[in-house]
Amino acid sequence: MKKGMILLLSMVAALATASAQTEPVDSSYANNYYVERMKFFEQLHPAPKPVVFLGNSITEAGPWSEVLPGINVVNRGISGDNSWGVLARLHQVGQLKPAKIFLLIGVNDLKRGVPVEYIIRNYDRITATLKKTLPKTTLYLQSVLPVAEPMLANIYAKISNEKIQQLNEGLKQVAQKYNCPFIDLYHEVFIDEKGQMRTAYTTDGLHCKPAGYLAWAAYLKKKGYL
Amino acid sequence: MKKGMILLLSMVAALATASAQTEPVDSSYANNYYVERMKFFEQLHPAPKPVVFLGNSITEAGPWSEVLPGINVVNRGISGDNSWGVLARLHQVGQLKPAKIFLLIGVNDLKRGVPVEYIIRNYDRITATLKKTLPKTTLYLQSVLPVAEPMLANIYAKISNEKIQQLNEGLKQVAQKYNCPFIDLYHEVFIDEKGQMRTAYTTDGLHCKPAGYLAWAAYLKKKGYL
Repeated sequence: MKKGMILLLSMVAALATASAQTEPVDSSYANNYYVERMKFFEQLHPAPKPVVFLGNSITEAGPWSEVLPGINVVNRGISGDNSWGVLARLHQVGQLKPAKIFLLIGVNDLKRGVPVEYIIRNYDRITATLKKTLPKTTLYLQSVLPVAEPMLANIYAKISNEKIQQLNEGLKQVAQKYNCPFIDLYHEVFIDEKGQMRTAYTTDGLHCKPAGYLAWAAYLKKKGYL
Repeated sequence: MKKGMILLLSMVAALATASAQTEPVDSSYANNYYVERMKFFEQLHPAPKPVVFLGNSITEAGPWSEVLPGINVVNRGISGDNSWGVLARLHQVGQLKPAKIFLLIGVNDLKRGVPVEYIIRNYDRITATLKKTLPKTTLYLQSVLPVAEPMLANIYAKISNEKIQQLNEGLKQVAQKYNCPFIDLYHEVFIDEKGQMRTAYTTDGLHCKPAGYLAWAAYLKKKGYL
């Protein structure tokens, strides 16, 4: 726990400095759960060249090794994480020397009212850092998933498919800039004919049901990404 | 869903018949979540000869592929499951033709006040069935984990370490009868000096923290089971 606390304090300090100089920072990710998961990750020793799923609760809850049998998958999802939280733990992800990284982050930033431009800026930083530090790793930028707006609880009031689409447009541009594959899960897998997250794929309008993970994994395989 | 409903109804019917003739049956396992998980499992296609972790929420929440890297692990945990529920899905587990099965079930039976002797009888049936239908599979009977009694919520009022120890004694005898390895997680991994589940290993007195899964996996490896 001592190590975790030092980590947390150093992150908060770093962010406070960055914040004072440049832009608002949503440091809500830096909670006990984040520190606990980071500590857990430190104790794991995955097989070489893993495929890393990196993101928030949607990634954390994913039964990746079940829906992608025979693939050396590693789950680096942290419930509640946002784009700053991912940025702050890229060094740990880098230690895995992944063959591939599938990134999905941003909906918690929207949840807390972070403007789309800041999230895109963080995506740019994440992508730039990973391209530089892990030149042999393929980084897949996955679109943020749609939500089923009528199903969302009040805590998600600031999230809309309109904003998600704005964010995804920006992510697409980041992907083009850095020559990364952009995976349009929003349109290709999760959206229904009414422009909402398919109800068959979601538990609460935002998180995924097993059927959603199955469709997601099938799409990644169909497109040859895995 | 149709298939799931038929499955559920046939299970309930079978149990109702069994119940009328012989003994009380706790069919509380046969809920929507059980059916949903069974349906999910049907759609998965694991690599051959998997190592199956079979059980309730404690198994379901286990990050098995993370704590056991390089091993073809399959999670067949269903939150809320009990010894009747496992018995009712052995055919599905059998289709996987597992190299090994690590079974952990029983605490939900205790939670609902099922007498220890019934749970042991079900363990005997489970073991007899698996030994017969999967003669090449090694079945590991894991002891039920201790609880941290002072931490338990009211819904767990019927669970005590005294009862768990009685149950584990019975499981040990079933293991001997069928020549299966018995894994004493209770004493070897999870108990503290006060005779309670180590607080460092549990979230709520019953379920495991990541540290608990790490210790559990390390023990299985140390003993050469994996």
